Amino acid sequence: MNLLIIYPTEVMLNHLVELSDERARHIRAVLRASVGQSLKIGLLNGPLGQGTVMSLTADKVVLQCRFENRVPARPLLDLLLAMPRPKVLKRLWAQFAALGVGRITLVNAEKVERYYFDSHAIDPALMEARLIEGLQQARCTQMPEVQIRPRFKPFIEDELDAGGYAQQRMVADPSARESLLAVLERFDVSERVLLAVGPEGGWTPYELDLLQGRGFQLVGLGERILRSDTACIGMIHTIHAVCRTG
Amino acid sequence: MNLLIIYPTEVMLNHLVELSDERARHIRAVLRASVGQSLKIGLLNGPLGQGTVMSLTADKVVLQCRFENRVPARPLLDLLLAMPRPKVLKRLWAQFAALGVGRITLVNAEKVERYYFDSHAIDPALMEARLIEGLQQARCTQMPEVQIRPRFKPFIEDELDAGGYAQQRMVADPSARESLLAVLERFDVSERVLLAVGPEGGWTPYELDLLQGRGFQLVGLGERILRSDTACIGMIHTIHAVCRTG
Repeated sequence: MNLLIIYPTEVMLNHLVELSDERARHIRAVLRASVGQSLKIGLLNGPLGQGTVMSLTADKVVLQCRFENRVPARPLLDLLLAMPRPKVLKRLWAQFAALGVGRITLVNAEKVERYYFDSHAIDPALMEARLIEGLQQARCTQMPEVQIRPRFKPFIEDELDAGGYAQQRMVADPSARESLLAVLERFDVSERVLLAVGPEGGWTPYELDLLQGRGFQLVGLGERILRSDTACIGMIHTIHAVCRTG
Repeated sequence: MNLLIIYPTEVMLNHLVELSDERARHIRAVLRASVGQSLKIGLLNGPLGQGTVMSLTADKVVLQCRFENRVPARPLLDLLLAMPRPKVLKRLWAQFAALGVGRITLVNAEKVERYYFDSHAIDPALMEARLIEGLQQARCTQMPEVQIRPRFKPFIEDELDAGGYAQQRMVADPSARESLLAVLERFDVSERVLLAVGPEGGWTPYELDLLQGRGFQLVGLGERILRSDTACIGMIHTIHAVCRTG
């Protein structure tokens, strides 16, 4: 944990925060902080800052917060991801938050198992805890927005162009003749990017048609067929490195 | 599994292979193959090819193999990685093989726990099984070479320059003023690259000095502090995308 995330509702008018959960334990047991010490804190979806330890007891830590004026920008990269297997998704949440994704939309696809949508991996409490873990790791405050869309076609046809999604769109598929870099070269680096990544078995031709009809450009990943979690992490990293979308 | 890896010692003079392990089960239960069907195969560290199912019984599958003439090139990217936590390393093996790494050297570092070197995660049988899983996923045959070096300084001082390691070297560290892309721009894309990634707590100044003394250039990863597994996957992907080292 490289940053303590504080919720806006936790900060009192006098700029004090009382912690008695896992964060309090972390401050005592891992950081071994003492009264007067200053810790790196971040206001969820707000600025970074410093928290001075005012008091420290077995069950409570009180911090005096001072936040910077500047609020870090939201990442300019959004992800449209065919719902992964629950086990994989549980591991991805923290990594998405750490790498920096503005909005994560989990959609259905032909090769997604229906039960994935009933899984514990999209339980709001679990999801939020894992996302916060990623923010605390990466030392950032911008929480990815998460949307779950169990119907692919209505989402693509009715919601995608109406819902404020990025116009610069790409979809990873082995059939692509262009590389990720070649497509990124045509993109405006100051604008948002929407990256679509398919399920383990890939998108169907019908799904690819629908996506391409909405302006998604095909991008290839070379000869290797990557697991969708590996592909996601790799592509998000590469897009941030090239476009400074992070 | 997008490719069946066959060991050279399994191929008989008549080009037949008899399988009775997990691969046989996969051919029957997942691929539901029948006699006469042709399956994608790859000879470990050799060419890709086709295996025609000659017979198929409850406990044995016989394939007639035909291999291409061309042997895929070894990835031009090597990894020098501070020994990760066992749980993390177990998950990384398959991803390294799938992304494509020529040689993986696991070294000790100040912030590596000693017991990591006694863990099940570097058991040769487990390691090989996970690496093969990655090759079979990515449809490639070049098995990463793995080296384990429990002493950092002797490795860096005595072995690195003598052992045929790439001369184009970079080390990820938050203190870097240059980005990954900026450093890659100076690299010759037809030459090997050696990427060093530190432990969870980072390299110590002493370790960074030793690495820089051996030609490692510092590369930064932006403001975010990534977990070392996320950083590895992301950076390998980006280096392959930019340098075609994969």
